[in-house]
Amino acid sequence: MSAHLIDNAASATAAHVDPARLLTAVEALASFGARADGGVDRPALSERDLDARRYLIDRAHALGCTVTTDHCANLFVRRAGTENLPPVMTGSHADTQPSGGKLDGCYGVLAGLECIEALNDAGIRTRRPLDVVVWTNEEGTRFQPGAMGSSAFVEPGLIETYRLASDAQGVTLADALTAHKHAFPALATRDEKLAAHAFIELHIEQGPQLELADIPLGIVSGIQGVRWYSVTCKGVAAHAGTTPMHARHDAMTLAINVRAEIEAFATTLGAENTRVTFGRWNVSPNSINTIASSVTFTVDFRHPDDAVLAAFDQQIASCAQRHRANLEAMFSHAPVAFEPALLDRLSEAAEALNAPTMTMTSGAFHDAMYLAQHCPTAMLFVPSRDGISHNPLEHTDDDYLVLGTRALAHCLATLCNEP
Amino acid sequence: MSAHLIDNAASATAAHVDPARLLTAVEALASFGARADGGVDRPALSERDLDARRYLIDRAHALGCTVTTDHCANLFVRRAGTENLPPVMTGSHADTQPSGGKLDGCYGVLAGLECIEALNDAGIRTRRPLDVVVWTNEEGTRFQPGAMGSSAFVEPGLIETYRLASDAQGVTLADALTAHKHAFPALATRDEKLAAHAFIELHIEQGPQLELADIPLGIVSGIQGVRWYSVTCKGVAAHAGTTPMHARHDAMTLAINVRAEIEAFATTLGAENTRVTFGRWNVSPNSINTIASSVTFTVDFRHPDDAVLAAFDQQIASCAQRHRANLEAMFSHAPVAFEPALLDRLSEAAEALNAPTMTMTSGAFHDAMYLAQHCPTAMLFVPSRDGISHNPLEHTDDDYLVLGTRALAHCLATLCNEP
Repeated sequence: MSAHLIDNAASATAAHVDPARLLTAVEALASFGARADGGVDRPALSERDLDARRYLIDRAHALGCTVTTDHCANLFVRRAGTENLPPVMTGSHADTQPSGGKLDGCYGVLAGLECIEALNDAGIRTRRPLDVVVWTNEEGTRFQPGAMGSSAFVEPGLIETYRLASDAQGVTLADALTAHKHAFPALATRDEKLAAHAFIELHIEQGPQLELADIPLGIVSGIQGVRWYSVTCKGVAAHAGTTPMHARHDAMTLAINVRAEIEAFATTLGAENTRVTFGRWNVSPNSINTIASSVTFTVDFRHPDDAVLAAFDQQIASCAQRHRANLEAMFSHAPVAFEPALLDRLSEAAEALNAPTMTMTSGAFHDAMYLAQHCPTAMLFVPSRDGISHNPLEHTDDDYLVLGTRALAHCLATLCNEP
Repeated sequence: MSAHLIDNAASATAAHVDPARLLTAVEALASFGARADGGVDRPALSERDLDARRYLIDRAHALGCTVTTDHCANLFVRRAGTENLPPVMTGSHADTQPSGGKLDGCYGVLAGLECIEALNDAGIRTRRPLDVVVWTNEEGTRFQPGAMGSSAFVEPGLIETYRLASDAQGVTLADALTAHKHAFPALATRDEKLAAHAFIELHIEQGPQLELADIPLGIVSGIQGVRWYSVTCKGVAAHAGTTPMHARHDAMTLAINVRAEIEAFATTLGAENTRVTFGRWNVSPNSINTIASSVTFTVDFRHPDDAVLAAFDQQIASCAQRHRANLEAMFSHAPVAFEPALLDRLSEAAEALNAPTMTMTSGAFHDAMYLAQHCPTAMLFVPSRDGISHNPLEHTDDDYLVLGTRALAHCLATLCNEP
């Protein structure tokens, strides 16, 4: 197919995205685990999640797709291609936070299905298959860690450990996977790690940047790396009334100074991409009339540049040593850079739709973080009202939901016709 | 009696203080409720406290004194005077913190009894009676509030409320008072509020100032006033990864700024007498990767000058308003100024003993705070090693314990011979 024809196919697919059908699907999926406050509570592989999956599978079959699963209950909805080539993948997750919204994860899955509808309606056959994937347990609230499905897809050996994870009721992931198998006995299980031409994840931003800039589409160039530390500062407990100021060793005064130092070098190192948060504070003895003897606080530092994260590691270590604070590394993850060629495809899609875009880094983790280790990967964001997510108030304007889906459709149609 | 004779009597009394007898008594009283770590755990009016009181009463009788009690189980050990005049009072309390030391309160009671021993040994008869008082429940750890005995002595109407206070096991003060009556049926109960010529309380400092200045005696000119506030700062919970620094409303950042402002004006207002403590911090949601939505911290401000406390009240109110923080007043107490004439008597006693003194304000509350509303009152401090109290490590060198008792003896002998 010539470039011109491909572009025509992409535009036709985008044009065939049906707003009403998309928005109806969002409401339909949100009915599984609907909360009275308008939010959704749908733990991974729970009965509610199995009901939601049944809805998605039935819909896939109605669209003429095949559905398969794998060792971590990921669902692969395949629209066939004309050639025997690795598929283009899209999708996200369908589990939610306990008081989550209707869009986090679900939007990406339903937009993927809408793209299949649009391809069908436009009468387009593509060279490559298109797989819409539902990744299992991205939120990590029922079973820890999160993003189990996507990480176990990319690194199959992880499943052995994951199977032992148990939820608050003592149900293991292994039990939940068995229940999933019993619920969907007709689904073929794919044992092999599936090669892929590309993975594109469409998601709500879950932050305020697009809204603040009044831009409807975010081309996500990567995911920030993260460092989690806990810092413990020591003082001497003493009487608030009898101890002169100059004779005090107040652990909180020290902790506030250490926090200020960390914030200062984090900002210097990270410049406008700095995200530094001191979210958890535990003070001992936490008494009105006793000077604090010990304060522990956490540091969450994120940045897209690995060199900045490494410099932060060095500076926080020397800062802690200087103040005789105890430093504990709790978690870290390297930054992920998405595939420039895919970012170009997303930009072209937006341009074809006359939609302004902003190139941005994702502050939150996503399944795409793991897929990037497996195949060329990128993400597309739509705005979140007030930057709110993980909350029943999570909202994106309908026009943005439709525009994001059209851009995804354009991009997928292009990629599916690539040789 | 001439001034010369009085001075001779005072010096003779001081000289008859017996170090071994004093220190033996400290150990003897500490045996009631002794902890394995060397500390003492003796709740007010507990069985252990009744045993301790039995020891004190027996000793008082052996010294030829009469012992009476009152509606709050305060004990009055009286050495008779030659004239029918209001007594000079001394003493402190015999209850302890759950992990308390041997000296807090007990030292003042035992030094008072040692002064009676010394007067006896010196063969001195005084014009006024000398009362050594054991005030009930100063610590306030079994029944709240603290200083029940001394405050109910000064303001007898308080006892009606106090009787309803119950301990952690549901035993009321009324029950405990009945048990006390049954334990000591022979003690006469004094119904009337007793007039007094003066009250002198000898106590350990419970702070580091005397030790830091290497001075053995503190002439206590008053007790600081206090203000307790809680300050709540509001922010907006948001994702640590997705929210740019400029779009944040971090309640902890605000709280730290408000704390710094309060500390600054407290220091300006209070100068070298400032005591300001931010001891208790509660952060919500207190999660590593969520920006704090609410932080509540407490402020404990103490100062000897009522005008400074009033100015602090004004400034903290306007500071809270400026930052839209919620301010809650939790507790306040006015400063207490002790009687200058008694401070002179204490200085003269120290001078007669060639002991350096330092005039200081008490940072902690004491029974003397209430007695000051009733009669001329003052306090004398001896050093606390490392400023530590309410702790089994509480310690004062033997030489200081003896010196403090000699100064008390000198002062009491003088006051007991005043017309």
